[in-house]
Amino acid sequence: MTIKKIRQENPLVHHITNYVSVNDCANATIAMGASAAMADFYEEQAEFAKISSALVLNTGTINQLIANSMLKAVKEYMLLNKPIVFDPVALGVSKARDGINFELLNLKGINIIKANASEMAGVIGLDGKARGVDNTFKINEEFLEKAMVYAKKTKRVLAITGELDYIIGEDKIAKVYNGSFMATKITGAGCMCASLCGVFAAVIEDKFQASLYALLSFAIASEIAQETCKGSGSFRVNLMDALSNLDDDDIKNRAKYEIIENLSCCK
Amino acid sequence: MTIKKIRQENPLVHHITNYVSVNDCANATIAMGASAAMADFYEEQAEFAKISSALVLNTGTINQLIANSMLKAVKEYMLLNKPIVFDPVALGVSKARDGINFELLNLKGINIIKANASEMAGVIGLDGKARGVDNTFKINEEFLEKAMVYAKKTKRVLAITGELDYIIGEDKIAKVYNGSFMATKITGAGCMCASLCGVFAAVIEDKFQASLYALLSFAIASEIAQETCKGSGSFRVNLMDALSNLDDDDIKNRAKYEIIENLSCCK
Amino acid sequence: MTIKKIRQENPLVHHITNYVSVNDCANATIAMGASAAMADFYEEQAEFAKISSALVLNTGTINQLIANSMLKAVKEYMLLNKPIVFDPVALGVSKARDGINFELLNLKGINIIKANASEMAGVIGLDGKARGVDNTFKINEEFLEKAMVYAKKTKRVLAITGELDYIIGEDKIAKVYNGSFMATKITGAGCMCASLCGVFAAVIEDKFQASLYALLSFAIASEIAQETCKGSGSFRVNLMDALSNLDDDDIKNRAKYEIIENLSCCK
Repeated sequence: MTIKKIRQENPLVHHITNYVSVNDCANATIAMGASAAMADFYEEQAEFAKISSALVLNTGTINQLIANSMLKAVKEYMLLNKPIVFDPVALGVSKARDGINFELLNLKGINIIKANASEMAGVIGLDGKARGVDNTFKINEEFLEKAMVYAKKTKRVLAITGELDYIIGEDKIAKVYNGSFMATKITGAGCMCASLCGVFAAVIEDKFQASLYALLSFAIASEIAQETCKGSGSFRVNLMDALSNLDDDDIKNRAKYEIIENLSCCK
Repeated sequence: MTIKKIRQENPLVHHITNYVSVNDCANATIAMGASAAMADFYEEQAEFAKISSALVLNTGTINQLIANSMLKAVKEYMLLNKPIVFDPVALGVSKARDGINFELLNLKGINIIKANASEMAGVIGLDGKARGVDNTFKINEEFLEKAMVYAKKTKRVLAITGELDYIIGEDKIAKVYNGSFMATKITGAGCMCASLCGVFAAVIEDKFQASLYALLSFAIASEIAQETCKGSGSFRVNLMDALSNLDDDDIKNRAKYEIIENLSCCK
Repeated sequence: MTIKKIRQENPLVHHITNYVSVNDCANATIAMGASAAMADFYEEQAEFAKISSALVLNTGTINQLIANSMLKAVKEYMLLNKPIVFDPVALGVSKARDGINFELLNLKGINIIKANASEMAGVIGLDGKARGVDNTFKINEEFLEKAMVYAKKTKRVLAITGELDYIIGEDKIAKVYNGSFMATKITGAGCMCASLCGVFAAVIEDKFQASLYALLSFAIASEIAQETCKGSGSFRVNLMDALSNLDDDDIKNRAKYEIIENLSCCK
């Protein structure tokens, strides 16, 4: 009854995000039943931390000014022990971007990292062959091994979007088989997934579960959106319709995933 | 024949607004028959004041840099005696935000304040219990009394959006009964209302009338949009369709409102 | 087979653009089969130049900070001899805007200028009677003459959008008769045309041809979008659908244009 809970509690999910998909992220957040605050002003991070239930950071159009707000925000949310989702967009593309992303990743408060495989490879110390926001990396055994080590060491959940979605915890991996190729035909799909991670983490304590629900919700809404779309414009409209209509039964009836548990990853 | 006039005169409505709903605000402005300039660069405020017919300010993603442009813009529009609409987004949420909002509100040039009840409570000196951009305040007698005192003192019109919309002048109150709950399911609805206030103020001298037409137009377009929508995505598309098709007959035939006049509010 | 080529090669088109239509530009770029990076951070321009196939600059919401990134980007792309498209939005409206636009125009690397007639008049030294982002200038013989002189002198292609589109090279002019008036009812149409110029320039060496294909593609997609739209909201959705479905046969079957060649413009 997680989606029902979101719609009842209407948690405020605070974003510091890019100006490309910010509108989609706000609308996706609201469509799921949460409320959205997109506030990047340094001076008010402490106050937003107090009234919000989760923080979502996305470095898509990062610069030093916004990075400073993010650093401040992470500290404030950490003090209050509230969930933080981090989306290190295009990590691996430039030194400046990597510098900012790793400065943020070095802070303790981040609970969930949402990224595509290229970006996540960079996070866990592999070469992700990043090209802008696109994924060019194929997930392999080495990647999964390293990801679990990272998850264990940092107590973070890694939510990896792609043809197949992976959620990686310190001793388990979930694979999500739902989804639509149409999500690669619009900008902001990954950003919206990070928003949904924030929405679910706002009402579920377990970050692995929250990430799994978030990626399942987005993937299932994408499938529904694809059914009647005529191109990338109507896919995007349908996607928002589907998110706003999604309920717990949709997840129960349509979810295709597996969880591999009790893995011992670490040598 | 106000909408007809907008579509004939095609006034330029200049915005300094947030980066979340800026695209919606521009599209809503154009859909109503006006033209939109979204220009926040400090150095060109004087020149935009000369070619524009109204200014719309929205502090959604405010920071000091943009605040400076707003302060400059208000001064330029005041000199030319052109209408200024102000949307103090999330007023009450943080000290920094309140500081900027009140610095702007202390300037004389602002003619119309568009806000939800939480934000407007803050404007007129009540505790609005602000939580991000959401309204959590119930309009009561004390509020209406204070609002009219404020309207009289400042010569401003207060346009308050919510389940019921209120337009408050110094000795009268309009209540708008049109509208759709779907407008709360998308981001930017309030911002678009402020844009429409600017559009109507660009062609109507009377700011009370302009605000009333603006909120009626948005509310009626929302009703039309709701009729065939399948969720929040298609609601947003339908809303823009409805705004672009709206004419004076729609307002005449569908408007549900009352104006309570000759009120003497002030002790 | 140009569109097929785009969809096969999936070139990365890097934008530094305004925050109003940035989402539309990214989605239009992706809909055509390219990939979009919207990256304005000064520190990473060199690295984006290396991985991208074209650069699109748009000064819609310019300020000095973003201008610096653009100046840096142009230098980096020039070094690599990669195509640069420039959209001098609202040129002529303010001194500060003109200052930045001409500082950029004075750099050698720009290959294609996409503008409406008002803006382009300013570029080539006529008074464009600019009013915000709107076109108020009628193309005449003097304009065409001056434009060709400019094209010859600077080795640039001028892509001019309007009721009729013009593509102007140093000794030839193309006129595009396709298009829909609905494109003037949404924000960002011109910006998306610039994006498409970048997309086509990423796979076609000849900048005149690239610009012609880009404006034809947008104009034909607009026609298709208009056929079933119910207003400006659904037009925008249909436009993105049409762009995402567009193929080389659509261009072949629907294109209405003429090229006037072997012109000797210059005294």
